[in-house]
Amino acid sequence: MANLNTILQAIVEKGSRWIEPAIQSEPPASQIRILCDKLLSSKGEASGVALADQALRLYRDLSADEKLGFFEFLAVEYNPAPSDVLAAAEDYQADQSSANLRRLAHSCEPQRQELLRRLNFAPQGTYRLVKMREDLLRLTRTKPELQRIDDDLRHLLSSWFNRGFLTLRPINWDSSARELEKLIAYEAVHEIKGWDDLRRRTEPADRRCFAFFHPTMPEEPLVFVEVALTGEIPNSIQELLREDRVPSLPEDKKVAVFYSISNCQAGLKGVSFGAFLIKQVVTDLSRDLPNLELFLTLSPVPGFIKSLEEKISLGNETTDVETLQAVVNLAAAGKPIGEDMAQTVRMLAADYLANDKHKKGTPKDPVARFHLGNGACLHAVHANADLSERGMQNAAGVMVNYLYDLDKLEARHEALRNEGTVALSRDVSALISAKGKVSHGKKLSA
Amino acid sequence: MANLNTILQAIVEKGSRWIEPAIQSEPPASQIRILCDKLLSSKGEASGVALADQALRLYRDLSADEKLGFFEFLAVEYNPAPSDVLAAAEDYQADQSSANLRRLAHSCEPQRQELLRRLNFAPQGTYRLVKMREDLLRLTRTKPELQRIDDDLRHLLSSWFNRGFLTLRPINWDSSARELEKLIAYEAVHEIKGWDDLRRRTEPADRRCFAFFHPTMPEEPLVFVEVALTGEIPNSIQELLREDRVPSLPEDKKVAVFYSISNCQAGLKGVSFGAFLIKQVVTDLSRDLPNLELFLTLSPVPGFIKSLEEKISLGNETTDVETLQAVVNLAAAGKPIGEDMAQTVRMLAADYLANDKHKKGTPKDPVARFHLGNGACLHAVHANADLSERGMQNAAGVMVNYLYDLDKLEARHEALRNEGTVALSRDVSALISAKGKVSHGKKLSA
Amino acid sequence: MANLNTILQAIVEKGSRWIEPAIQSEPPASQIRILCDKLLSSKGEASGVALADQALRLYRDLSADEKLGFFEFLAVEYNPAPSDVLAAAEDYQADQSSANLRRLAHSCEPQRQELLRRLNFAPQGTYRLVKMREDLLRLTRTKPELQRIDDDLRHLLSSWFNRGFLTLRPINWDSSARELEKLIAYEAVHEIKGWDDLRRRTEPADRRCFAFFHPTMPEEPLVFVEVALTGEIPNSIQELLREDRVPSLPEDKKVAVFYSISNCQAGLKGVSFGAFLIKQVVTDLSRDLPNLELFLTLSPVPGFIKSLEEKISLGNETTDVETLQAVVNLAAAGKPIGEDMAQTVRMLAADYLANDKHKKGTPKDPVARFHLGNGACLHAVHANADLSERGMQNAAGVMVNYLYDLDKLEARHEALRNEGTVALSRDVSALISAKGKVSHGKKLSA
Amino acid sequence: MANLNTILQAIVEKGSRWIEPAIQSEPPASQIRILCDKLLSSKGEASGVALADQALRLYRDLSADEKLGFFEFLAVEYNPAPSDVLAAAEDYQADQSSANLRRLAHSCEPQRQELLRRLNFAPQGTYRLVKMREDLLRLTRTKPELQRIDDDLRHLLSSWFNRGFLTLRPINWDSSARELEKLIAYEAVHEIKGWDDLRRRTEPADRRCFAFFHPTMPEEPLVFVEVALTGEIPNSIQELLREDRVPSLPEDKKVAVFYSISNCQAGLKGVSFGAFLIKQVVTDLSRDLPNLELFLTLSPVPGFIKSLEEKISLGNETTDVETLQAVVNLAAAGKPIGEDMAQTVRMLAADYLANDKHKKGTPKDPVARFHLGNGACLHAVHANADLSERGMQNAAGVMVNYLYDLDKLEARHEALRNEGTVALSRDVSALISAKGKVSHGKKLSA
Repeated sequence: MANLNTILQAIVEKGSRWIEPAIQSEPPASQIRILCDKLLSSKGEASGVALADQALRLYRDLSADEKLGFFEFLAVEYNPAPSDVLAAAEDYQADQSSANLRRLAHSCEPQRQELLRRLNFAPQGTYRLVKMREDLLRLTRTKPELQRIDDDLRHLLSSWFNRGFLTLRPINWDSSARELEKLIAYEAVHEIKGWDDLRRRTEPADRRCFAFFHPTMPEEPLVFVEVALTGEIPNSIQELLREDRVPSLPEDKKVAVFYSISNCQAGLKGVSFGAFLIKQVVTDLSRDLPNLELFLTLSPVPGFIKSLEEKISLGNETTDVETLQAVVNLAAAGKPIGEDMAQTVRMLAADYLANDKHKKGTPKDPVARFHLGNGACLHAVHANADLSERGMQNAAGVMVNYLYDLDKLEARHEALRNEGTVALSRDVSALISAKGKVSHGKKLSA
Repeated sequence: MANLNTILQAIVEKGSRWIEPAIQSEPPASQIRILCDKLLSSKGEASGVALADQALRLYRDLSADEKLGFFEFLAVEYNPAPSDVLAAAEDYQADQSSANLRRLAHSCEPQRQELLRRLNFAPQGTYRLVKMREDLLRLTRTKPELQRIDDDLRHLLSSWFNRGFLTLRPINWDSSARELEKLIAYEAVHEIKGWDDLRRRTEPADRRCFAFFHPTMPEEPLVFVEVALTGEIPNSIQELLREDRVPSLPEDKKVAVFYSISNCQAGLKGVSFGAFLIKQVVTDLSRDLPNLELFLTLSPVPGFIKSLEEKISLGNETTDVETLQAVVNLAAAGKPIGEDMAQTVRMLAADYLANDKHKKGTPKDPVARFHLGNGACLHAVHANADLSERGMQNAAGVMVNYLYDLDKLEARHEALRNEGTVALSRDVSALISAKGKVSHGKKLSA
Repeated sequence: MANLNTILQAIVEKGSRWIEPAIQSEPPASQIRILCDKLLSSKGEASGVALADQALRLYRDLSADEKLGFFEFLAVEYNPAPSDVLAAAEDYQADQSSANLRRLAHSCEPQRQELLRRLNFAPQGTYRLVKMREDLLRLTRTKPELQRIDDDLRHLLSSWFNRGFLTLRPINWDSSARELEKLIAYEAVHEIKGWDDLRRRTEPADRRCFAFFHPTMPEEPLVFVEVALTGEIPNSIQELLREDRVPSLPEDKKVAVFYSISNCQAGLKGVSFGAFLIKQVVTDLSRDLPNLELFLTLSPVPGFIKSLEEKISLGNETTDVETLQAVVNLAAAGKPIGEDMAQTVRMLAADYLANDKHKKGTPKDPVARFHLGNGACLHAVHANADLSERGMQNAAGVMVNYLYDLDKLEARHEALRNEGTVALSRDVSALISAKGKVSHGKKLSA
Repeated sequence: MANLNTILQAIVEKGSRWIEPAIQSEPPASQIRILCDKLLSSKGEASGVALADQALRLYRDLSADEKLGFFEFLAVEYNPAPSDVLAAAEDYQADQSSANLRRLAHSCEPQRQELLRRLNFAPQGTYRLVKMREDLLRLTRTKPELQRIDDDLRHLLSSWFNRGFLTLRPINWDSSARELEKLIAYEAVHEIKGWDDLRRRTEPADRRCFAFFHPTMPEEPLVFVEVALTGEIPNSIQELLREDRVPSLPEDKKVAVFYSISNCQAGLKGVSFGAFLIKQVVTDLSRDLPNLELFLTLSPVPGFIKSLEEKISLGNETTDVETLQAVVNLAAAGKPIGEDMAQTVRMLAADYLANDKHKKGTPKDPVARFHLGNGACLHAVHANADLSERGMQNAAGVMVNYLYDLDKLEARHEALRNEGTVALSRDVSALISAKGKVSHGKKLSA
């Protein structure tokens, strides 16, 4: 099976014939602008591919400053002409004919979009644009006027990364080394420490990994999830990843634990697949292993300690500042938390996840926002569940399970969206009620 | 390798839960409209997939009249509001900020586009939209107000059928029966008469076939080309397809003949891949079989006789009406043409292909327009080359070779586009000059 | 994945350098003998491959008489030397040392075996030897002295076609045309009448086909079985193969019917795989389709009418000759059998299958011998089940079901082998008892 | 693609039903003997598979002493009966009929062979017998009476590992981790130190690796070779494997260097594939990379220093003991050798490889025996080419190139075999002549 890369490559190799020597001798930062103009006016297929390839090559090697300059150029040039837009809008108001509608669409679309579409014709064009967006997103934080470029780029990427085009593939010890080492590179939650660790996560039959791929980037996972099949609901990530663990048969397992979900392409931020990935994996696993009864995550609570610190600083009279500070101190100490305080920590974390929300009703904790937004339910809260440095500092060691019940995802998703209702298990509800009662007595712990 | 179909299917099977019974009891023609509205306002993923699937199911089973009604509904509803458009245009004129630009884009995009994007989330959504466009194109011929729907649909399909997503695959006797029988169904130029004929075109090593596929429709070829590897430039399609032909080794062949190119999906009209297919196949074949020296077509001239008839009816003093009528009569007679007239027929056909053009400079003959537009060159003109009924009636048996010379495609493409210059071989040029001289003497033939 | 064919081919192409011109100019029938001698004494690998290839080429093109001559040569030459054998036997009797045992083995093994092993080194050597054995088996019928060649050849093929080397593959409409057309060629029970018929047997999800393949002959099925998934136990092959049948979902089916089993390679006679094929397919299907409850055949009874004719001709007083002759006449008439006689025909067929045995206790009917020998049970006997010409002539239209119950195969196999007990269902037992009773009254039918 | 393992596994899981409880309660060492007897007399297929599996399971868990006991049992039992053999030999002398020949073959074949054939029916039987032979070969060194078992086992394995059954597969960074880690385990020449080293040998396009596989052991390479594509003939293994090497394009390379060949299965000793592997890889590489001009090894000289020590101890008057001892001392010192002595070392090594032979004319050095026996030529001798501890101790750092010239392999192979002629390049011949001249002057070095 060959794709178009062969011919694209052939065209590109003869590419320089399409670019006049005078242009080629320009410095990169100005040459790329000339090429963009030429690309937009080019009519030939071969020359278009060659120009696009050369422009993307130049882009790759620009300095940071030159890249910013290039984006500023893109933001200033290639906008719709206000007078054309206005004329088309007036005509459309006068007569909503198909022709007027088409002219309106045409006059409003920034030429930038067509430019980006043509850059996409270069070999590996899509991947190179994803990488370009990585740079762009970084710069847009401080240069909001670049936002318009990202509007165009994201519009196109959303169309190209249409979820109907994605393929789910398991990644395991039978996968190629080339693919497997991508996991090491992209794992964002619990670092994979070399090939032995990788093997522990991908070889045993009670450990699984799945990723989404796109046809234009067959070697680059977009997002992947690591799964452990267990007998019980897990309450500790260190336990789950123990080096000396003895693998066991997946057929006996009742619980599938999603213990790590990593987005691989920073340039695809906001073009999200994670929700669908988990649902697809739940569907696939439950078909293959009919014994499975529970599908849940073992997830960090990255904003927990920070939320306590905020509460302390904003502290009002109902806040038990002393207790909150004690938990913050324990987190900073980085040691396992004793039984006396463990329950307090769990209560506070549950309260944070369930009740700390943005104005529009979404949970403040980013991981909670993702899973609860998918329609999952906050199932359990565990103390001393992540004793790593990061786990202690961010969350005093707390981790939680979000439960994926396929039959209830949609309703829970709607309830959160419409009424801001966070789905909680009976245990977690009880935990929060208990906290409420205790905290009225002003003391959460001795 | 699984794609998202599993989970989509699971969602769809429980689909009816997302659609209220009151809606389900509506007649299809009104139910589909309600579903479209619901789909546009839906926020949930699962319900969206289920609504889209149900709407497409209803669509499939509508009567011809109901389909027209549905399209009229789509054309009237879901247009941008003129006042919003105008307000956004005015704001944009006042200040070309990113925010204003985004609002402009948003106000100008018909909701129809978003509706179509969401219909695409149904299982096999893309294929079902391609089929829907087949209906739409038929209706638009007589109902130009539907054009706006096609503008939206074609915009989306062009993005999804981005040529970077296409895969080239050979189809031969080692391909699956399922794939091979598609060739029988879709062959549009020289009918494949059952499996024995199919085998003659796909099994011998000196016969090849290639097709483009899209990842969302892996069993549906988009376009395919049939190739014969020969020792000489062929001058007869019947000879090329002879049943009792003895296959020979491809390694000895110098000529690759593209003798049939068929678009398979009427719903992808105007989203063209044919040009790229030929170029890709030329690239692949020349790598695999370094002996190949010439890549050319054996093509019909579908508009030849019709052009003569027009010339006769419009006839001015320089027209040799008598000769033209003789050729028209020979075509109608449907028999091989004798040596005396063969040269005349060739001259007239060459003249037609090279000189009969639309105002904007493109050749009138549709096959010539395609190949010359790709940058091919008119290489040779053969009499008695297609003795089939169609071949005689349309072209008095004439077929021609268009030559694909990779190194010259771009320049020839540009020359045709910019100056209207048709690329001709020396032989064909001589043929046309000879015709000119003869015709000055007012008689092309005795 | 490449196998050794590349290098073998390279060697063979330069093959002639290993064969002196004097030899090459000999007539084929004598050249092949010289090459066999040279091959046996050759020490080099490349020359060995080239000699083997050339010998097998010559063999293929020999006339029928020359082939016989070649086999006679093989049978006369290349035998162990009696004196060597005797000496080795005496030494071994004196001292059963490893060395003496090795020498014994060496002196007793015909050089022919080594010759055949070396012929096997030619490209496609194994397949070519299988084809050679096809010739040999035909000739051995009338020339028993050639038996010794087959003893050697079969010994080697049994080792190479070790069942651990076989691969089971489904063949269906997704298989290559190349593979599918082999089914048409090799189907031995119910002829496949072209591609439409083939599609009816391989495309619908309630029709399956499986074959065994060997790694050295990846395009040649060794044996295949066709399976129908049905709701009821079938009692008519015409019904099963009806052209206008509407396929249905396999998930609902309870019965898997093996309605045709064909050995593909005559040259592998006696190197049997059929038994294992059915058991493997039963195992695979029951895993994929847990709803399946019954696995049985719909099988012909090829020896039925012939057995009646023998009984008539040998007729003793207990034989109801009149009835038997009536059945024979009905078979010859070739028409469906009326209800009055249908029961009689079923009784006689059941009796034949259960009671007509060879002296060593195996059923006389070859199909019964195969299935009962595998441990299947005679489950039901149907009249008017095969109305084809062959079905009527051989068996008056009778077909039967043999039931494969994996848990009982071994015990039934042993019972037949040790005590000659044929496994019968209750129904068939009752049918036979009824026949016994009726026949005591001397009349099976009015 | 499924092979028979599914059904074998199903049979084996129910296996215990075929083995009476009385037998199952025997201690393993005696139970295995009973099972062997039962297996030989078993007639059923399923019971045979179950018995074989159970016997092989028991075998695996036997202690070393029990294994020896088991082999002694196999060696004593299951031999041909001398009287039967003698009777058959006498009959055969009297009449060489096919029947007598068959009886002779039958009486001479040890029942052990049939037992081993039946053990092979167990799941993964072939692999388990290969592993058993590993044990057997170890024991046979001190227990020559076990030789007869190996005679049978090797006879069978040679037939099953017929080179027509082997598949060549590249192993590279796109291979599965499961396959790649086998290289680390089996590399026998230049240790692979973890995944980074493995990547350096398999990922760059100018490094290749190829292995032979057998269909019954698809995850176990039989033998593999590592190849470096270089611009020059390499003269140092450390240079070739340098960590900081910059990979380059294979298209420019003229030399393919086989720098490591490892047999993976000790139990297949003497069932050799290495020679064919190199020839096949030469054939494949020269087709893929037409630029390649030279195919040669970079090989150790494992017996060099030992040969010098022997010469010293046997020293006669023509031996320059002093020089030899100097080289031995340098090897022991383990440091790079200065220019003054380097030439001497090269001379002595060339002399050793070319002239130190066993009585039957084969080179004493095992690596030389392998490559020269394949028909390669001793092309160059390098000092300071392997500075590893092993390289210094065994060969004072010397490595050599054996050149594979496909066109001359056969002739060189024959010349060595028939006349004991070692193929030498002009350079190496000159080196040896020089040594001869110098050594006449009694001093090889100052």
